[in-house]
Amino acid sequence: LTEESANVTNQETLSKATLMNFEKFSGRHVGPRETDVEAMLRVTGLSSINELVQKTIPNEILFNKPLNMKEGFTETECLERLAELGKKNKVQRSYIGTGYYNTIVPPVIQRVILENPGWYTQYTPYQPEIAQGRLESLMNYQTMVTDMTGMAVSNASLLDEATACAEAMAMCFATRKSKRKHVFLVDDKAHPQNIELMRTRAGGMGITVRVADFRKPQEMDEDVCGVLIQYPNTVGAVADPSQIAENAHAAGAQVVMATDLLALTQLKPPGELGADIVVGNTQRFGVPLGYGGPHAAFMATTDKLVRKMPGRIVGMSKDRHGNPAYRLALQVREQHIRREKATSNICTAQALLANMSAFYALYHGPTGLNRIATRVHTLASVFASGVESQGHKVKYDQFFDTVCVELSSNLSTSELENRAGAKEINLRVLTAAESTTAAVCVSIDETTTEKDLNDLLWVFSNGGADSRVVTLSDYTDNSHPVGELVGYAYPHELVRTSEYLTHPVFNTHHSEAALTRYAKTLENKDLSLCHSMIALGSCTMKLNGVTTLKALSNPDYTNIHPFAPLDQAKGYYEMFEELCADLCEISGYDSVSLQPNSGAQGEYAGLMAIRAYLDSKGQQERNICLIPSSAHGTNPASAQMCGMKVVAVRNDAKGNIDMADLHTKVNKHSDNLAAIMITYPSTYGVFEEGIRDMCDLVHQHGGQVYLDGANMNAQVGLCRPGDYGSDVSHFNLHKTFCIPHGGGGPGMGPIGVKSHLAPFLPTHNVVKIPGGGIGPAENDGNSDQAFGMISGAPFGSAAILPISWAYIRMMGPEIVKSTHLAILSANYLASRLRGHYEILYTGTNGTCAHEFILDVRKFQQSAGIESIDIAKRLIDYGFHSPTMSWPVNNTLMIEPTESESKEELDRFADALISIRAEIKEIEEGAADHTDNVLKNAPHTAEEVSSDKWEHNYTRSKAAWPVTDSSTSKFWPTVGRVDDVFGDRNLRCTL
Amino acid sequence: LTEESANVTNQETLSKATLMNFEKFSGRHVGPRETDVEAMLRVTGLSSINELVQKTIPNEILFNKPLNMKEGFTETECLERLAELGKKNKVQRSYIGTGYYNTIVPPVIQRVILENPGWYTQYTPYQPEIAQGRLESLMNYQTMVTDMTGMAVSNASLLDEATACAEAMAMCFATRKSKRKHVFLVDDKAHPQNIELMRTRAGGMGITVRVADFRKPQEMDEDVCGVLIQYPNTVGAVADPSQIAENAHAAGAQVVMATDLLALTQLKPPGELGADIVVGNTQRFGVPLGYGGPHAAFMATTDKLVRKMPGRIVGMSKDRHGNPAYRLALQVREQHIRREKATSNICTAQALLANMSAFYALYHGPTGLNRIATRVHTLASVFASGVESQGHKVKYDQFFDTVCVELSSNLSTSELENRAGAKEINLRVLTAAESTTAAVCVSIDETTTEKDLNDLLWVFSNGGADSRVVTLSDYTDNSHPVGELVGYAYPHELVRTSEYLTHPVFNTHHSEAALTRYAKTLENKDLSLCHSMIALGSCTMKLNGVTTLKALSNPDYTNIHPFAPLDQAKGYYEMFEELCADLCEISGYDSVSLQPNSGAQGEYAGLMAIRAYLDSKGQQERNICLIPSSAHGTNPASAQMCGMKVVAVRNDAKGNIDMADLHTKVNKHSDNLAAIMITYPSTYGVFEEGIRDMCDLVHQHGGQVYLDGANMNAQVGLCRPGDYGSDVSHFNLHKTFCIPHGGGGPGMGPIGVKSHLAPFLPTHNVVKIPGGGIGPAENDGNSDQAFGMISGAPFGSAAILPISWAYIRMMGPEIVKSTHLAILSANYLASRLRGHYEILYTGTNGTCAHEFILDVRKFQQSAGIESIDIAKRLIDYGFHSPTMSWPVNNTLMIEPTESESKEELDRFADALISIRAEIKEIEEGAADHTDNVLKNAPHTAEEVSSDKWEHNYTRSKAAWPVTDSSTSKFWPTVGRVDDVFGDRNLRCTL
Ligand SMILES: Cc1ncc(COP(=O)(O)O)c(C=O)c1O
Ligand SMILES: Cc1ncc(COP(=O)(O)O)c(C=O)c1O
Ligand SMILES: O=C([O-])O
Repeated sequence: LTEESANVTNQETLSKATLMNFEKFSGRHVGPRETDVEAMLRVTGLSSINELVQKTIPNEILFNKPLNMKEGFTETECLERLAELGKKNKVQRSYIGTGYYNTIVPPVIQRVILENPGWYTQYTPYQPEIAQGRLESLMNYQTMVTDMTGMAVSNASLLDEATACAEAMAMCFATRKSKRKHVFLVDDKAHPQNIELMRTRAGGMGITVRVADFRKPQEMDEDVCGVLIQYPNTVGAVADPSQIAENAHAAGAQVVMATDLLALTQLKPPGELGADIVVGNTQRFGVPLGYGGPHAAFMATTDKLVRKMPGRIVGMSKDRHGNPAYRLALQVREQHIRREKATSNICTAQALLANMSAFYALYHGPTGLNRIATRVHTLASVFASGVESQGHKVKYDQFFDTVCVELSSNLSTSELENRAGAKEINLRVLTAAESTTAAVCVSIDETTTEKDLNDLLWVFSNGGADSRVVTLSDYTDNSHPVGELVGYAYPHELVRTSEYLTHPVFNTHHSEAALTRYAKTLENKDLSLCHSMIALGSCTMKLNGVTTLKALSNPDYTNIHPFAPLDQAKGYYEMFEELCADLCEISGYDSVSLQPNSGAQGEYAGLMAIRAYLDSKGQQERNICLIPSSAHGTNPASAQMCGMKVVAVRNDAKGNIDMADLHTKVNKHSDNLAAIMITYPSTYGVFEEGIRDMCDLVHQHGGQVYLDGANMNAQVGLCRPGDYGSDVSHFNLHKTFCIPHGGGGPGMGPIGVKSHLAPFLPTHNVVKIPGGGIGPAENDGNSDQAFGMISGAPFGSAAILPISWAYIRMMGPEIVKSTHLAILSANYLASRLRGHYEILYTGTNGTCAHEFILDVRKFQQSAGIESIDIAKRLIDYGFHSPTMSWPVNNTLMIEPTESESKEELDRFADALISIRAEIKEIEEGAADHTDNVLKNAPHTAEEVSSDKWEHNYTRSKAAWPVTDSSTSKFWPTVGRVDDVFGDRNLRCTL
Repeated sequence: LTEESANVTNQETLSKATLMNFEKFSGRHVGPRETDVEAMLRVTGLSSINELVQKTIPNEILFNKPLNMKEGFTETECLERLAELGKKNKVQRSYIGTGYYNTIVPPVIQRVILENPGWYTQYTPYQPEIAQGRLESLMNYQTMVTDMTGMAVSNASLLDEATACAEAMAMCFATRKSKRKHVFLVDDKAHPQNIELMRTRAGGMGITVRVADFRKPQEMDEDVCGVLIQYPNTVGAVADPSQIAENAHAAGAQVVMATDLLALTQLKPPGELGADIVVGNTQRFGVPLGYGGPHAAFMATTDKLVRKMPGRIVGMSKDRHGNPAYRLALQVREQHIRREKATSNICTAQALLANMSAFYALYHGPTGLNRIATRVHTLASVFASGVESQGHKVKYDQFFDTVCVELSSNLSTSELENRAGAKEINLRVLTAAESTTAAVCVSIDETTTEKDLNDLLWVFSNGGADSRVVTLSDYTDNSHPVGELVGYAYPHELVRTSEYLTHPVFNTHHSEAALTRYAKTLENKDLSLCHSMIALGSCTMKLNGVTTLKALSNPDYTNIHPFAPLDQAKGYYEMFEELCADLCEISGYDSVSLQPNSGAQGEYAGLMAIRAYLDSKGQQERNICLIPSSAHGTNPASAQMCGMKVVAVRNDAKGNIDMADLHTKVNKHSDNLAAIMITYPSTYGVFEEGIRDMCDLVHQHGGQVYLDGANMNAQVGLCRPGDYGSDVSHFNLHKTFCIPHGGGGPGMGPIGVKSHLAPFLPTHNVVKIPGGGIGPAENDGNSDQAFGMISGAPFGSAAILPISWAYIRMMGPEIVKSTHLAILSANYLASRLRGHYEILYTGTNGTCAHEFILDVRKFQQSAGIESIDIAKRLIDYGFHSPTMSWPVNNTLMIEPTESESKEELDRFADALISIRAEIKEIEEGAADHTDNVLKNAPHTAEEVSSDKWEHNYTRSKAAWPVTDSSTSKFWPTVGRVDDVFGDRNLRCTL
């Protein structure tokens, strides 16, 4: 019996934690085991974590105490609490519509996509050779959108319909034919959240939104750059938009249509009605309501506009061997390159949800979708004739799914609402602004049953009136569609006659077995966190624990309409309060807005709050935003969208902000300084020393500090932006706080603010959420000063907030352990790689933060090797590349996170060291300058097993650089992809 | 606009089904789309499904009407009903123990194993080259079991602890040293279900079970072949079994110990205490209670006994390249080969659950498991001292988790039960037979909290007595284990000192990221239904729909103890009644027993019912069981276990039962005929014509008919065993009724019987389930005539019954569509292959049933090719082999099932046709006789990309026989495995 084993087999005395059953989640979340931590410290030349912290973070900003948070839950306790809070939500049947509809998520899609780490842990497909699966799925998505809308091209998702409307407006403005054109004309029957969001966005960009009654002929003058038509409109009416479109075009304006894909199975698509841009939400294609999101919005355009379209676009190109290969097309045509000229800041979007909706479309196929739509219209028609027979008036005879009912004088709105309440039914009662008469909209959807119809008719009856009972089977076996028979035919000219979804992919996978296999085939083409670490700098690709994700499988969370009354979402709200309190404690801020649903949205929201704050002080002239040249492209884009002028601040040789230049700039712009945007620790992975001074300096000159929170994973529990001088930050919950990246979204980017900014935080025009955000500084519901709206839904993508809540609540104050190990892991890797590679920009004591930059620039000269070659060669070793060429061109930025085991870190370091040796072979002439394992990487199975082998190196060297039996070889399914070819021969649909 | 597209895009009028929202599951369950069915009929030379049915099934047995079942649920309706029934179950906190304990299923294991089709859709790993993942996991399992028990070898799971006890008893009997040894001595403090099940089993085998008080010295005479000791025993006592073991050995008897793996982290393992065989249940290692199962039981033995051990064993061997490779060792050493000499009939076991428990062990590691166990013992000790201070008596001071409390006279049992009821707590009140005094057992487990302890103490208090409150933190920071401190130390000589789980695999994957990656690495080595069809004849590998599996994710179903009072399982019971009613309608039987948890268990149960029925008529002399030589090996094994004598009936040249031989045999054995076992359609895939006559004939001779229901998938809705003369059948729910095979279990094999057999159906000795099974013929609870017990739990593996319930309820009467398409798919494949291969044994009209045999025997002569070569070559094409060499040696039996699309069937046919061409190349000398693509198959990526290539054919021919971009190449991870080497050099632990 060795001493070590005695340890194991002897009965232990138990710690309090164990006795109380604190099977700590933190021990499962972090990768390195305790003995590993010691070994890692040793290699890094450190005696303790404390020494590492002291060396890495400027002393003056250290938060030297435990976070004041509740003890972490065990996973069991967390699941219990989640269920308990879920029960506090009240899931009523919703007929609210307004852009969000009940849908049946096919259980197979729920399991093989939404609940499958093989789909949800991936990053945006920047390495196409190991991402053909989800690229194909997004191509399906784009094809679905273009087919349904009748447009030429589509992007691979936007955040939500409301922001998509705003993006379309911005495109119309950016491509306007003359400077005069500053007016954007909006359908007064567009969804209210769409209108309001466009209003908010218009402000910063110098656009004037004019809301008009599109039922009347609109004169369009020279000022108009674009129009937006909602089709069918928010009260359900289906009307021909051709005249408006023609007038717009005649006036040199562009036509945007916001639409509903399900309706388009029946109605003539916007592409046949003159639309230049089409937007909408794919939510009702199998994505749960989720109290507002996440869902994938779409944008489709004409070929002419494709290069102006925001968001990612998947395109077809070819690989090195000439085989077809998908990849992101026209990459970074927007914010990364155009920066302060960008008109959109979108980065993280909604890839996972786009994939779900594409799978829904191909599971049902065109016939199935048409059947669903026909049924929806049939039931809506039966309902309409029912309420008419009750004495109410159907306001618009031509509708798809939404019936607008003008109540007869026998039934008051309040009585109707009582009756609806009794049946636990939510309806949309139009506001006085929306309708002068008492009117109610009822949106029918895929889930509506005969019983539901009869319950609805009961609600619309009143004491004396006809509580009619409909029997659906009365409506079968007719030779005409029911809608027509009962008097609600579509306008003849708007009946769709064109085909859609004719590609085989939409006509093949209709059985569950076939769908499963197709989904698995795609999944298996892609490298995800299930295979190996993904050390993408600035992306924080860490564990997405199963327990944290359980709300997404719980109908108490997923089945709530975003416009349900707040008191039906009490569980959510209680959770939001806990989450915001913890985020405030972690960040040192006073209040949080949960509305922004990406980091970039958070940036924009934060700057808008600053804008509104400055305006409230009469400082409209302050419009300069200082941004270091090293900043993420979303920073300048966001500033620009707020109407701020971006002034770049130089970086010094070490990657730090050049203090001299900063001084010059603040002095020069002192009168007009609005804000500075700083990423901290810097995008170079360094805790800059002068951070507090910088903040002070900007404040002295009357500016506000926006601290980009993308790198919070290096700070949590160690230092707090709110303490060292920042006024506002976004938190990428999909980085530091464990929302999985989903292959390009969903994400959430809530912002934390100091109390002076709280009154300006976003509000919502449909659901009256309290003003001032959530947290100590919230201001009891008064939202007079709010700058506007950020998302279509009051709490953004609410359904994924429980993920971050669960992560934080399970870590408790031990969350600092994540930070410790994130920093240690980065420094450990840096230590292992130093000597082989140069590390750019470490801090004053030689340590890095949670990430660092590998400088590979000199290999260009010595071996003709660039960062991309190393990136692709890593694939042969079974790894995803670190972040390539950002923030410094031709480098690799490595962020390991706390969740990787020492074994995995070592495997990764070994791979990079081995690649260094391969570069040396080129340098020394032992390997060819062009025909070598790096330039030809990655190597596919087809290539290395082909009958011909004409390289200067062996097949085994190509494909089996390591022999590690503990993992399986991951094969890229295509060779290196040719980006240039693809962009020249753009093809973005199947 | 083409006509076809008009179809799609026009508004349809809706069928009633669509209008009522019958989004039929049947359309998702079956593979071929409607147009495919037409094409398949055409190729098969048939005009309609009806013609196919008429040609295939003897007219005289056709069930020419729709099944009398409720209209099928939509998936949504099914999930609603499932939730509703779940709510009728009442999940109380259970301290019942008795072999089943609450456990925390780590959410990551729930998601990446239990809820992952990549793990649950696989077949038993008979093709090791594409099964290294789960073979490795089962090797982990075996190592876990051997380490914990201190034994040399373990099998890869048995059905449950009770049957494992019986299997051990049978081994002792089979290996007894003299014929005299017919007594098996059983600990009277073994779990009651273990004792009762051994009693049942002993009957048929001529063993006498003698129950004895092992606390007293036992004299063992020459009659004793073995003893079974429960350690710790059923009332929780931990006592040294060494003396009993010594005596047993001295008397030439073998020692079986039934034990608990968690206790063995603390207690000296059976292997150090003289055990020859060790059995138990791994349920508490992360497998939910599930109202009785499924869980993996284990059996571990000495090296000497390994070849006598029932069940599958994974062993290490090497592949063609000399690399280590796992595979099933000592295959078919039991029933397939030994047949009527077999002492066990186990076939389907509990692979999926074994894997779950192995993952649980490696997630916690030895330290974590020990900590859990220490905590359990600590809490039990605290509880014990609590009840003692209340005036009760702790009956056994030395326990692990179970405290046996003798109630003080102040508290009556009924008062205690009332108090427990008030707190929704289930306890185990000992029966009068179990304890002469009023005594209650309380089993503490991983989930028990401080609050639970205090609730328990409240229950044990009474009005006046001390309702003591314990504070766990009082017990920390001591220098001694709490158990010792409070007076409940383990017996010193029984404290474990030996190491366990020292292999790195148990000490590495402790973070969730690491565990996920390890599980995914293993998953990705294995071919499952996620990759391609698995056309295993007689196995019915069809869709396991996600909706059908949802109960396994619902605590209302998973968290119920099997011995909870029946009225806490009302939801389950209502579901059972629906399931049994439907099974009766489908089969023509009158009652169903849900207890058997595999097909083989069903066979045994059915024959035991026949045995009991005959005995009840005074026909003890009837003991001959006729079994065709083509029967599955479990048939004769089961008959043998019932004490019946097996007489083989010949098959004729067409694979049918030789009627002349049958006549001879029934005449010869007329006085002693007990039963015939017939598989129908036959194991050769043929609906034999004379089935009704055969049944009549056997009945005329006083025998009963057992119809093996493994092939029900060809019969459902078309013909019913109960109609054409059978008396009893089992239904492999894991075949026809969609329980996923799980890589070798779980399964369920309920039996249906005609009413005369119903009174004899199994009962349960702990939970008084109604006698007579469930169904029209059930007999109001009277179970006097029941033959005994089949499983440790009253309803076998209850938690998977909802799967079959859901499948049947969603299909409704349309379930016949499955049968139609299963038969059509088989005939379509046969048609496509005819001309290339010979098809053995079709029916009189040239059609086959749902499967058929491909005769490849002539290739032995013509090309030196055997079925195994074709099987392995199919792997290169991305397919799993059909059933190899069963029921006819050197053939392949193909069963496609109804769930495969025409595309997949074609892909499979194309592969086989292409392989036929490859064989022709050998026949014609174009390919080498030994160095060819078949003999060397499967080809690994390593091999085809290695630097050396010395074969007579190209690499591309080896690895890329088809270029089909629609699927990804599936690579075997090892080359062809050497079975002989492995069996000669047996190694069954890591
Ligand atoms: C430093 C930094 N800021 C902002 C963003 C934008 O965040 P999001 O992608 O969530 O919009 C990112 C994204 O990677 C980032 O790295
Ligand atoms: C014809 C037949 N009978 C019985 C069985 C035994 O069933 P189980 O494996 O469920 O014990 C099988 C299993 O494949 C079978 O094919
Ligand atoms: O996606 C990013 O640009 O980081």
